[in-house]
Amino acid sequence: MPQTSTPIERFYSVIPAGGIGSRLWPLSRADAPKFLHDLTGSGQTLLRDTWERLAPLSGEQRVMVVTGRAHRAAVEDQLPELADHNVVLESEPRESSAAIGLAAAILQKREPGVIIGSFAADHVIKGSVQFRDAVTEAVAAADAGYIVTIGIRPTEPAVGFGYIKCAGPLAIPGAHSALAVDTFVEKPSLETAEGYLADGRYLWNAGMFIARADRLLEEIGRSEPELLAGLLELAEAWDTPRRGAVVDQVWPRLKKIAIDYSVAEPVAATGKLAVIPGLFDWDDVGDFASIAKIHSGGRKHDLAILGEGARVLADSSSGIVVSHTKRMIALIGVEDIVVVDTPDALLVTTSANAQKVKAVVDALKLSGSSDVL
Amino acid sequence: MPQTSTPIERFYSVIPAGGIGSRLWPLSRADAPKFLHDLTGSGQTLLRDTWERLAPLSGEQRVMVVTGRAHRAAVEDQLPELADHNVVLESEPRESSAAIGLAAAILQKREPGVIIGSFAADHVIKGSVQFRDAVTEAVAAADAGYIVTIGIRPTEPAVGFGYIKCAGPLAIPGAHSALAVDTFVEKPSLETAEGYLADGRYLWNAGMFIARADRLLEEIGRSEPELLAGLLELAEAWDTPRRGAVVDQVWPRLKKIAIDYSVAEPVAATGKLAVIPGLFDWDDVGDFASIAKIHSGGRKHDLAILGEGARVLADSSSGIVVSHTKRMIALIGVEDIVVVDTPDALLVTTSANAQKVKAVVDALKLSGSSDVL
Repeated sequence: MPQTSTPIERFYSVIPAGGIGSRLWPLSRADAPKFLHDLTGSGQTLLRDTWERLAPLSGEQRVMVVTGRAHRAAVEDQLPELADHNVVLESEPRESSAAIGLAAAILQKREPGVIIGSFAADHVIKGSVQFRDAVTEAVAAADAGYIVTIGIRPTEPAVGFGYIKCAGPLAIPGAHSALAVDTFVEKPSLETAEGYLADGRYLWNAGMFIARADRLLEEIGRSEPELLAGLLELAEAWDTPRRGAVVDQVWPRLKKIAIDYSVAEPVAATGKLAVIPGLFDWDDVGDFASIAKIHSGGRKHDLAILGEGARVLADSSSGIVVSHTKRMIALIGVEDIVVVDTPDALLVTTSANAQKVKAVVDALKLSGSSDVL
Repeated sequence: MPQTSTPIERFYSVIPAGGIGSRLWPLSRADAPKFLHDLTGSGQTLLRDTWERLAPLSGEQRVMVVTGRAHRAAVEDQLPELADHNVVLESEPRESSAAIGLAAAILQKREPGVIIGSFAADHVIKGSVQFRDAVTEAVAAADAGYIVTIGIRPTEPAVGFGYIKCAGPLAIPGAHSALAVDTFVEKPSLETAEGYLADGRYLWNAGMFIARADRLLEEIGRSEPELLAGLLELAEAWDTPRRGAVVDQVWPRLKKIAIDYSVAEPVAATGKLAVIPGLFDWDDVGDFASIAKIHSGGRKHDLAILGEGARVLADSSSGIVVSHTKRMIALIGVEDIVVVDTPDALLVTTSANAQKVKAVVDALKLSGSSDVL
């Protein structure tokens, strides 16, 4: 069946483009966050990949990007089609409830009844037909009043992702695969993850949320009424000359809380959270082990090499080399190694330790080495 | 007993300063050979350390350095006391028989009966009293007509060194510990090395040769008569205006052969090779594992850091980091790692693979990457 390019009715894409991606230091930096890198070898940034995945689903004029002021130029450079009124700039990061909530509030004011879908700017997805199918079902479930997430069918006992425990089917028209969500669970141990995989009821939490904007705001207001008040005040002023003044006054006071805690978990407890199992390949590219896996296609003993003009000489070595310096890099007898070579910082670790990179970034902050962050 | 500073009579030190030290790439290069680095943390180069060890034994005016034309300025910079007539420049490298043989021929012509001792420019020795004692005995044995080497009492089953198998005592006046040499053996396997250590008759071959210059030349002539003829022709012209012309004509035609093969092994077979067991600490600093060992004092789980102004952040890591770039280097969970960071080349390997670095250099040569060699 050929893929249709007709946008999904009433649907609006929201892309929060905020996180630096500390686990990908020294590649990802404050001034070069993860979403501005090509980590898949696609030849374009993750943000551009995300745009090209979402624009056909909602229409190019219906994609909103929420990002930091510092990244405005880079985002507009990556997304020349992005409409001016769809750029939402944060004066400082305030976490996902504020970012997605503000988008919801602005869009609900502009277009009551709009259904928004929020998707990270820096994840990797393969399988556009399956992705569209899942979003289409999610929109149908959202239209029926549910807060909806898309969970990914696990292919291995991953310990780097959170999981969603599914309950029974919801029988929503147009969303035949929708299930109720029992609970969200944090990143598990390997043993627990193996149990989840065997159990069959667990999906990976990919951080995708689809909902009617009014329903999302309602749920934010239920758990965080002050946050909602701030968001509504911002939205009221957004498309007026008062925007700047209100942003300066309100935004810095908004509570920092992940949408998982303000919306997803409380709503799951009331049975109004639906999950659509996504049958596409997904990865949050959360660390260098993940990038190595994507590039090796899962093959062991491969060495993935990223970076234009990389010069790498490897003998009996596997893992990943990211070269941003054009220096000669020689590897001898290092297995599952991670080498990230940038002009002012070098990282050497292993796939097994890839998650610990964030701790190094924290240590560098503490030691006053902000020049390399 | 205070150490005497009286030079040993008739003794002349020769320092062949030639090898690049390929196993220490990318630190050691054609234009920055091993002997011009501080690899011990002494604060000065290995060449300078060598000078300071030898000058008291022979006198400052009796130390000859044989080096490549390209290194003349660096050598003279390191050794301002070095007399002009003691600088022997090779137009191209021709191996140790030619280098040491030329020094012997020049010195024998200048001072018949001189006893020379040849010591590498890039080894590490600790224990100057024991070193002097060994050289003093070696000179006595050389005076008695022997070709003499100093072998090192092994402290572990090293596989990176050649060994000397000792035979019985030689009863030479002034060289009470001199033994006959049975054979020289190449770098052994670990199992063989453990056998050598247990056996007790094996010493490490440190490449030190002490002999009367006339005896050394006689032995070179016995195995390599054409080489000897060339050396004598060079020596005849050396202190005359014809030096340049003769060097240009003769030097490039000299046979390239290590002195181990032209002299040490054949002489051992005739029973005229003596060995003095050296009781000082010695290391040829042959690879990065050796440097790591020197810096850690043998302690496991230590991370040695070399390089002025190095910025290293390490978590659960051991091995060695050589930093010549002032970049931030972060290591996470890498054991026995070797990281050598230079402006145009980066090496990542492990202590266990340190000997293979030479193969990388060979591969870089073959691939035309001479810009980083």
